[in-house]
Amino acid sequence: MANPSLLILAGDGIGPEVMNEVKRIIDWFGAKRDLAFDVSEDLVGGAAYDKHGVPLHDDTMAKAQSVDAVLLGAVGGPAYDNLDFSVKPERGLLRLRKEMDLFANLRPAQCFDALADFSSLKKDIVAGLDIMIVRELTSGVYFGEPRGIHMEDNMRVGINTQRYTEAEIERGARAAFELAMKRNKKLCSMEKANVMESGILWRDVVTEVHRDYPEVALSHMYADNGAMQLVRAPKQFDVIYTDNLFGDILSDCAAMLTGSLGMLPSASLGLPMANGRPKAMYEPVHGSAPDIAGQGKANPIACILSFAMALRYSFDQGAEADRLEAAIETVLADGARTADLMGPEGGVPLSTTQMGDAILTAL
Amino acid sequence: MANPSLLILAGDGIGPEVMNEVKRIIDWFGAKRDLAFDVSEDLVGGAAYDKHGVPLHDDTMAKAQSVDAVLLGAVGGPAYDNLDFSVKPERGLLRLRKEMDLFANLRPAQCFDALADFSSLKKDIVAGLDIMIVRELTSGVYFGEPRGIHMEDNMRVGINTQRYTEAEIERGARAAFELAMKRNKKLCSMEKANVMESGILWRDVVTEVHRDYPEVALSHMYADNGAMQLVRAPKQFDVIYTDNLFGDILSDCAAMLTGSLGMLPSASLGLPMANGRPKAMYEPVHGSAPDIAGQGKANPIACILSFAMALRYSFDQGAEADRLEAAIETVLADGARTADLMGPEGGVPLSTTQMGDAILTAL
Ligand SMILES: CC(C)[C@H](C(=O)O)[C@@H](O)C(=O)O
Ligand SMILES: CC(C)[C@H](C(=O)O)[C@@H](O)C(=O)O
Repeated sequence: MANPSLLILAGDGIGPEVMNEVKRIIDWFGAKRDLAFDVSEDLVGGAAYDKHGVPLHDDTMAKAQSVDAVLLGAVGGPAYDNLDFSVKPERGLLRLRKEMDLFANLRPAQCFDALADFSSLKKDIVAGLDIMIVRELTSGVYFGEPRGIHMEDNMRVGINTQRYTEAEIERGARAAFELAMKRNKKLCSMEKANVMESGILWRDVVTEVHRDYPEVALSHMYADNGAMQLVRAPKQFDVIYTDNLFGDILSDCAAMLTGSLGMLPSASLGLPMANGRPKAMYEPVHGSAPDIAGQGKANPIACILSFAMALRYSFDQGAEADRLEAAIETVLADGARTADLMGPEGGVPLSTTQMGDAILTAL
Repeated sequence: MANPSLLILAGDGIGPEVMNEVKRIIDWFGAKRDLAFDVSEDLVGGAAYDKHGVPLHDDTMAKAQSVDAVLLGAVGGPAYDNLDFSVKPERGLLRLRKEMDLFANLRPAQCFDALADFSSLKKDIVAGLDIMIVRELTSGVYFGEPRGIHMEDNMRVGINTQRYTEAEIERGARAAFELAMKRNKKLCSMEKANVMESGILWRDVVTEVHRDYPEVALSHMYADNGAMQLVRAPKQFDVIYTDNLFGDILSDCAAMLTGSLGMLPSASLGLPMANGRPKAMYEPVHGSAPDIAGQGKANPIACILSFAMALRYSFDQGAEADRLEAAIETVLADGARTADLMGPEGGVPLSTTQMGDAILTAL
């Protein structure tokens, strides 16, 4: 049987640096665990724009559609800030999400024991935190039409459309309920049903899907209260289901609670392909971090953990994912720290490559 | 000269309880500081619905338009959760905001020295925190058309429209820059210009208004990063300017950072009236807190501080506002605590009225 295929889109900023470490991890699994992948690489974001004048070339899009999973680094940076909206690096990422139809974005917010001190929250509030945010990723205001800036009475008007069909809400809800079933059977759905009709439909559809998952305790919360509760008492949550825009903000908020932004992976999953695997893209939650790009300082763990999610969700290799996650826990417990994980006490941080070395050794 | 006029809309849940203490404070200013107000009262939210079948009667709307300032308690509660969208308690509040054209919503997030331990954030991260969020309050997705739930191909579709004209963005921006000038001359504007055209227009217009305030240091941040930075290092901010929906979420997040949700006031300001005062409504950031309503436990400070904002922004009585705020600092420093301000150490909390007593004594 052919090896499973991976497309690596390292992207911009620290993307290529952290992805280098992932490639070494992938090689290790091929050599030591008999888990070989066919790896190809291509450009996305600013890197693609520089070469092709677009943030994602059609050939790259076609490749992404044909592989078993995509690993993405990060897109964007100040060099591209003044580009026209239609060719911004982010459009490359959004095109991948939309055309691969990756509707369920899984964003764990986990507090690593060894790093609990590092959060801006008090230790007892975040220690042991383990939330999964499921963000709807292919609809809502990110993609709704009409959109744009036009003139009205001699004045510019900016318009975007929040639009959700019941089918769009439903399939994401099912993904969230399925996850809740495998976890603590608790799901909180967040919207603004008090001010937005799209939020009313959201709440209704989630309530309807709940009938198929009676064992899950479902609650509803307004997204503003959700943000508050995440800061006040995040451990009250298990799985959270929310829309594209709220999910963007709430998952960043949740990620930062743990103090380990450089540590958090994500999976974006779509419908099953012919081989039964879901369409899938894996990427760290952090961005391209232009301030430290090219310095070999970036923390590769979020990107490596994204590969662990690929092992689990695309390749049914839960035990190997556990192995990789355990290796990371070990190096952290041993005190391995990249610069982003250093407290005010200071010390000499590991470089990106040294962190990769440490994880390979622990494996 | 006639006394300035106040319309009190106590609303639902704990609204009437906390407003009772505000009335005593208002009486005190009349008796002791020669600052008498003509106070009238009316219904809003669920209370108005119960009596009139609408969450804001036209007569009440007319009164709100004619007074110098409105003080609002809170709206909503589980009894009204299943009402039709068009008569939900929140619609009463939104009608006031829209018809009074209260475009600039000022939401301070302040950490009170005596309460710094009470935040879920580490003390050094929040102690001394003093941010002002300016939220655009009369446009955006809260009010944009088209909106609603309709059928398309036999499927329900929920739609809301994010819509901003340059005039709408501009007037709020001016309010924010003016505030920044009186504070630390630092303004951060938040949007999602990387994915929304309305965010691009937002960024452009704020940049244009900046020309009139060259002394203010202006920065731009994506709203998801804004949520992160608020949790990571909130003291980096002075004034934040953002839209109606992002403002809803980010201000709740910021409020919770301080651990003093029961402490935070807000002002919603519009255009100047004939007498030079701005159209204005003042309300606590907290909601109707149905879980503790009717128990005499609610913290009245947010509502009292909202009246202090009225003294400052509507009645040009900055010194009297300072006096009231100082009295509150004093009672807190003396250890006065309502139930929401009690740590795990416990103790016997003050009732709503006892907290009012303490503040009156300190005055
Ligand atoms: C880079 C940007 C387009 C993206 C988003 O807004 O979805 C990012 O913030 C994310 O959360 O993945
Ligand atoms: C009650 C609700 C309509 C309101 C809003 O969403 O604006 C509230 O959350 C607020 O922030 O004032």
